[in-house]
Amino acid sequence: MSEQQSDVRYRERMQKKKEIMDARIRESSEERGVVIVNTGTGKGKSSAGFGMAARALGHGQRVGVVQFIKGKFATGEEAFFRRFDEVTYHVMGEGYTWETQDRERDTEMAQAAWERARALLRDESVNLVLLDELNIALKKEFLDLPTVLEDLASRPPMQHVVITGRGAPQDLMDVADTVTDMRKEKHAFEAGVKAQQGVEM
Amino acid sequence: MSEQQSDVRYRERMQKKKEIMDARIRESSEERGVVIVNTGTGKGKSSAGFGMAARALGHGQRVGVVQFIKGKFATGEEAFFRRFDEVTYHVMGEGYTWETQDRERDTEMAQAAWERARALLRDESVNLVLLDELNIALKKEFLDLPTVLEDLASRPPMQHVVITGRGAPQDLMDVADTVTDMRKEKHAFEAGVKAQQGVEM
Repeated sequence: MSEQQSDVRYRERMQKKKEIMDARIRESSEERGVVIVNTGTGKGKSSAGFGMAARALGHGQRVGVVQFIKGKFATGEEAFFRRFDEVTYHVMGEGYTWETQDRERDTEMAQAAWERARALLRDESVNLVLLDELNIALKKEFLDLPTVLEDLASRPPMQHVVITGRGAPQDLMDVADTVTDMRKEKHAFEAGVKAQQGVEM
Repeated sequence: MSEQQSDVRYRERMQKKKEIMDARIRESSEERGVVIVNTGTGKGKSSAGFGMAARALGHGQRVGVVQFIKGKFATGEEAFFRRFDEVTYHVMGEGYTWETQDRERDTEMAQAAWERARALLRDESVNLVLLDELNIALKKEFLDLPTVLEDLASRPPMQHVVITGRGAPQDLMDVADTVTDMRKEKHAFEAGVKAQQGVEM
């Protein structure tokens, strides 16, 4: 095949791809808030949520964040996002759950955090709500799943919600619009690399 | 089982979990920059990269971003991250690749973008380099993979790199420290929901 023929084919292929994308964009016409769930054992579930928060801020939107498990290392996001007036930020309780070792207290903290989440889910001035590690609190049964689903369902129609954490309950995935299973293929932590500022695992 | 027994078991389980985590943290002692690859067909690959950029900024670090494919909607991140003095930001070329429909031009733009990436990979004052959608440019063979791998290998030892895009080449995954396969389980776009500001798909 000559170089010219190859160029022609490349153009044709790209033209076809453009037509498919344009058609898909035309067909996708419903404007409403979506529920996005990032689950799985791999890295990036929370980071993707915080990336979406950054993107929303780039569009001049308002963002609410509730962190349901405060990790020892997950302080960079907090330090960063608390800087912005457009961000409401709440972190549940103290330290890792397995450092408090008191189920009753963990449950109380999670429920108090859910009260903060519910306030965001009733505020239509908040465009994006990030419920970081909510799946963990659900899995541990610190929160009542039907209550959570009900609060999600009755939120303002244009509000987007991002929910992260491994082990998302099936009922939550069923009501979600977008679900991504982030699978671990390889992890630096397991190869003996220390968790470090900026790339905590 | 009485409530008291249940509480004791809960404490024991949490204590054990804490011991395992502490041991893993002790064992992970190597401090060095890591290469993180986010690939797969699901949502969140780029968002996770931008979330890590936000986290790094939260730690007062410097960040470099090169976007290898400029999407029609991926403007929120750019608008947001360009605000910060600690961020160097470069976006390749114009519009989607399939809108230029000229392979030679696409290749030139990708190579010019790689020159910007290389400059970041030689600058030890940059703590985190995000090479967004690099995998696409590699897959389309706009860039020479061995050159890319060589530039990655000769970067400053403490510098972290995040590479995103579906279809990561095997040779790149082999040299990466952390690889996440982000799998699409469900996608709002396919259910007819329009891509919207703040949650572009």
